[in-house]
Amino acid sequence: MQGAKLLDVTWHHVEELQEIDVDKEQKLLMKADRIIFQFPLYWYAAPAGLKNWEDKVLTRNFVYGDDNDNLGDKEFGIVVSTGMPLKDFRRGGRENITIDQMMAPYRAIADRAKMKIMPAFTISQFQYLDDQKQMQLLIDYQRYLTQKYPDTLTNRQEWFEREFTDRFKNFDGTNCTECETILNTFIQQKEDLEQLKSTISLIKQGEDE
Amino acid sequence: MQGAKLLDVTWHHVEELQEIDVDKEQKLLMKADRIIFQFPLYWYAAPAGLKNWEDKVLTRNFVYGDDNDNLGDKEFGIVVSTGMPLKDFRRGGRENITIDQMMAPYRAIADRAKMKIMPAFTISQFQYLDDQKQMQLLIDYQRYLTQKYPDTLTNRQEWFEREFTDRFKNFDGTNCTECETILNTFIQQKEDLEQLKSTISLIKQGEDE
Repeated sequence: MQGAKLLDVTWHHVEELQEIDVDKEQKLLMKADRIIFQFPLYWYAAPAGLKNWEDKVLTRNFVYGDDNDNLGDKEFGIVVSTGMPLKDFRRGGRENITIDQMMAPYRAIADRAKMKIMPAFTISQFQYLDDQKQMQLLIDYQRYLTQKYPDTLTNRQEWFEREFTDRFKNFDGTNCTECETILNTFIQQKEDLEQLKSTISLIKQGEDE
Repeated sequence: MQGAKLLDVTWHHVEELQEIDVDKEQKLLMKADRIIFQFPLYWYAAPAGLKNWEDKVLTRNFVYGDDNDNLGDKEFGIVVSTGMPLKDFRRGGRENITIDQMMAPYRAIADRAKMKIMPAFTISQFQYLDDQKQMQLLIDYQRYLTQKYPDTLTNRQEWFEREFTDRFKNFDGTNCTECETILNTFIQQKEDLEQLKSTISLIKQGEDE
């Protein structure tokens, strides 16, 4: 997963499959480093199309048969979008159930396959967000797809630096001074943060002695 | 629901429907006093067929639209069968999730429709049970379908008395002395229990004074 780019991401629409080729689907799963179920929330779960795919593709033997490790080293994530505001999804709220509670069956599958489970990524009422928030969410979403897990400051910095560098490279020929300024500022701030961290660590050491 | 008989129960196989007639399905739901989802557990949820039915039949407006009470007075139950032993379904167990946790999305639907939620009825590894346990489970299952909710001693007694009486009546013509003995013993025991209860209540009263 280290260094994965958006270009490495495969979108695979299971609802649009005319017929499910179990063998092909299983091979696709085995090729991935991170498997993400993405769906709009329908009655507190994925739509029937994904469940149908689960029931057919995820054979017992494939997921946790003897002597297999088909999915064992992979990461498992969920991207779920909802038309209701997030505040409705809690005990005593209008929906009286949390997103996390609803996602328990999918986590249980990942558990059974010995996958590493990432926290679910929830997109709620995307259309009501202003431009800046939509953009922020888009970046968070891209990080969810490709950033090294878990979501630590270091992993986040690494992701942004890589993405900046990659994108600025794509302005072939043209000289983007603004881009370079952004990248340099980012790297400078990262170094400042590292400096700060080692200073704090020295102070702590002094206190302990 | 009071006095419902097994003859009043309608089994409706949603997976076998060639095409789902939303209006017809909704009318069927509205006719029932107790709605029970019954299914074998597939990947910690109902099979895709039931989810497909949910996604189509349970329109937002039907379940909780303004000024409607389509399902509000009804009771909601779940009968779920599993090939794994019940002890696997708990935190730290082989399946690492409880039946109750898995059923949360269905309860959330019932909640949204303002239905009264019954505890789920789980049938685990039916084929491995001996004859007596299978018979016991069958009776418990019949009670789940038709007995007055909640499952108190009084409601259970009432159910058994009614079922006994009804069944013995069906031996048309023939005189079943054994049946009458069972019924009379049952009624005698029920009266003994009531006597005991009022004695205990008198003792408690004495203690309070």
